[in-house]
Amino acid sequence: MSTATQAASDAAAMRRALELAERGPARGVNPRVGCVILSPSGDVLAEGWHRGAGTPHAEVDAISTLPPGAAHGATAVVTLEPCNHTGRTGPCAQALIDAGVARVVYAVEDPGDHSSGGARTLRSAGVEVTAGVLANEVEAFLEDWLFAARRRRPRVTVKWASSLDGRAAAADGTSRWITGPEARADVHHRRAASDGIAVGTGTLLADDPALTARDADGELLESQPVPVVFGRREVPAEAALARHPHEAIRMSGADLAADLAELQRRGIRSLFIEGGPTLASAFLRAGLADELLVYLAPSLIGGPRTAIGDLGIGTIADALAFAFTDLIRLGDDVLIVARPRLAERTDTSTPERA
Amino acid sequence: MSTATQAASDAAAMRRALELAERGPARGVNPRVGCVILSPSGDVLAEGWHRGAGTPHAEVDAISTLPPGAAHGATAVVTLEPCNHTGRTGPCAQALIDAGVARVVYAVEDPGDHSSGGARTLRSAGVEVTAGVLANEVEAFLEDWLFAARRRRPRVTVKWASSLDGRAAAADGTSRWITGPEARADVHHRRAASDGIAVGTGTLLADDPALTARDADGELLESQPVPVVFGRREVPAEAALARHPHEAIRMSGADLAADLAELQRRGIRSLFIEGGPTLASAFLRAGLADELLVYLAPSLIGGPRTAIGDLGIGTIADALAFAFTDLIRLGDDVLIVARPRLAERTDTSTPERA
Repeated sequence: MSTATQAASDAAAMRRALELAERGPARGVNPRVGCVILSPSGDVLAEGWHRGAGTPHAEVDAISTLPPGAAHGATAVVTLEPCNHTGRTGPCAQALIDAGVARVVYAVEDPGDHSSGGARTLRSAGVEVTAGVLANEVEAFLEDWLFAARRRRPRVTVKWASSLDGRAAAADGTSRWITGPEARADVHHRRAASDGIAVGTGTLLADDPALTARDADGELLESQPVPVVFGRREVPAEAALARHPHEAIRMSGADLAADLAELQRRGIRSLFIEGGPTLASAFLRAGLADELLVYLAPSLIGGPRTAIGDLGIGTIADALAFAFTDLIRLGDDVLIVARPRLAERTDTSTPERA
Repeated sequence: MSTATQAASDAAAMRRALELAERGPARGVNPRVGCVILSPSGDVLAEGWHRGAGTPHAEVDAISTLPPGAAHGATAVVTLEPCNHTGRTGPCAQALIDAGVARVVYAVEDPGDHSSGGARTLRSAGVEVTAGVLANEVEAFLEDWLFAARRRRPRVTVKWASSLDGRAAAADGTSRWITGPEARADVHHRRAASDGIAVGTGTLLADDPALTARDADGELLESQPVPVVFGRREVPAEAALARHPHEAIRMSGADLAADLAELQRRGIRSLFIEGGPTLASAFLRAGLADELLVYLAPSLIGGPRTAIGDLGIGTIADALAFAFTDLIRLGDDVLIVARPRLAERTDTSTPERA
C-alpha cells in the first residue's frame, strides 16, 4: 500500500473502531474503546469493543473472535493506546504481540499511571506503531474520561441560580422560582449528562431534593446522575433521595480533593454540584471548580441569602479569576458559563484502568 | 399643492426644523425645538430655534426675523407642539395667530401641564393644524426631555459593578479593579451622556470620587454630568468633588421622589446613580430605577460586601422584576442592561416649560 492509501485505510478503520466504541457503556470506570483487525491487504478480519469493567478490553475482544494464528501479520486499529497492565484482564499489548499482530494504529495515548506504556512494549517487540489517527475525534469522544484519568478526579461543574444581585433566596428562605422553565429544563438536561450530582447534607435536610434529571412534566429523563451526598449528618430514610434510581454515594466532605479522587476511582467522571451555597462555596474555595454555570434571573432580591457565601477572599487581588465562555439566553433568564482563567494543569498521570 | 406633495413638503421642512433644533443646548430645563416658516407656495421664509431658558421659543425666534405681515397665510413647521403658556416668554400659539399663520405642522405633542393645549388654541382661532409629522424621529431626539416632562422626574439609571457572585468589594473593602478597562470606559461614556451623576455622602466620604466623565488617559470628556450628592453629611472642602467643572447639587435623600421632581425642575433629565450600594439600594427600594446597568466581572469574591444591600424583600414573590434588554461583552466583562418589567406609567402630565 502507498503511504496515502494506508493513511486513508487507517482513518476509515479508526472511524469504524470509534463506532464500535460507542456501543460500550457511557458510564463507569473504564473508557469506551473499539478495535478493528485488518488483514495485510486491508480487509476487516475482526471487530471488538469494551463492554465495561471486568469484561475483555476491545483488542482482546476482537482477537478472541479469530481462530489461532489468524491475526498473524495483521494490523490492529484501536481508539486508545493498548494497555500495558495486568488488572482483572491481561495487558492488551502482550495479547496483540502474542497474536502475531505486525502493526498497531491508535488515536489517543492512554493517560493511565499503570496502564500506559503499551506502545513502548509493542515497539520493543518489533511491532510497528502509528499514533494520533483521528486523535481529535477520539479526544472529544473520551473527553470526560480523559479529563478524569489525567486529573485523577471528575470534572466539576458548580451550578447556581440567583437574582441579578447574587441572591439565591429571599429573607424568608423562599426561592421558587427564581429562574423560569427554560433555565430549569437546561439544568435537568445538564444533570442527565453528568455522572454524579452532588448535594450537601444541609440542603438535603432543608429542601429534600429528588436529585433526578426530569422533563417539564416531572418524568425521569433516560439517563440519571448518581447522587453524591457530602457531609456527615444522617439522611432520613423517608428522604426523596431514597427513591432515586441510583443508590447515593456518601462522602464526608472533610477533604474534597480526596473525596473527588475516590469518586474518580468509582467511575464518576463528571460531577454536577447542585448545591447548596455551603457545598458550592467549599468547592470554589478549594479551587476545584472546572466550570461555573450561573443562571441569572432578571430580578433583584437583596438581603442576606447570597448564592455564594464566604470564599476566604480577604482582598481584591485574591478574587477567584474566571473567564466567561458563554452567555446563553434561556427565556427571561441568562446562563453565564465560566471557566477558571488559569491554564489547566498538565498532570497526565492517573490510576490504572480496571 | 396635492396632498402627497404637501406631505413631502411638510416632512422636508420638519427635517430642517429638527436640524435647527439640534443647534440648541442639549441640557437644561427646556427642550430643543426648531421651526421653519414656509410661504403658501412652500418656500422657506424664516428659520428659528430655541437657545435655552429665558430666550425666545423657536416659533417666536423665526417670526421675529420677518417684517410685520410677512407670515400672513404662511405655514409654521415646528418640532414640538407650540406652547400655550405665558412664562418668561409669551405663548407661541398666540404669537403664531397674531402673525397670521394659516397652518401649523408639528411632530410631537407638548406634554407640559401648563404649556400644552397650543394645538387647541390654534384650531379655535381657525388655524389648520397637522400633528405627528416625523413624530418618531423627534420622539427619539427629545427622548430624555419627554421622559422627564411626562414623568416629572429624570430618567434614572442605576449602575453597579460586581463579581459574578454580586460582590462590589473584598472583605477589606478593596475593589480596584473588579472590572476591566473596556467596562470602565463604557461607564465614563454613559456618565458623559447623562445630565446628572448621583452619589451618596457615605461613598463620597469613603472614596472621594471625582464624578467626572474621563477618557482612558484620565482627561475630561467634552460633556460632564452635574454631580448630585444625596445625604446630609457635610462634604469636606478639599474633596475631589470641589474640582468638578459643575457645582454639585445637594439633596437630602429623605424623599427621593421629591428630590427627583426638584432635579427635573432644575433641568436634570437623566440621572446616573453612581453609588454606592446604599444609594443604589434606596432608589431600587423606592421603585425609581428606569434602567439597570450591571457590569459583571468573571470573578468570585464571596463575603459580606454585596453590591446591593437590603431591598426590604421578605419573600420571593416580592422580588423586583426586571427584563434583560441587552447583554454586551466588554473585554473580559459583560454588561447586563435591564429595565423594569412593569409597563411604564402613562402619566403624561408635567410642570410648565420655562
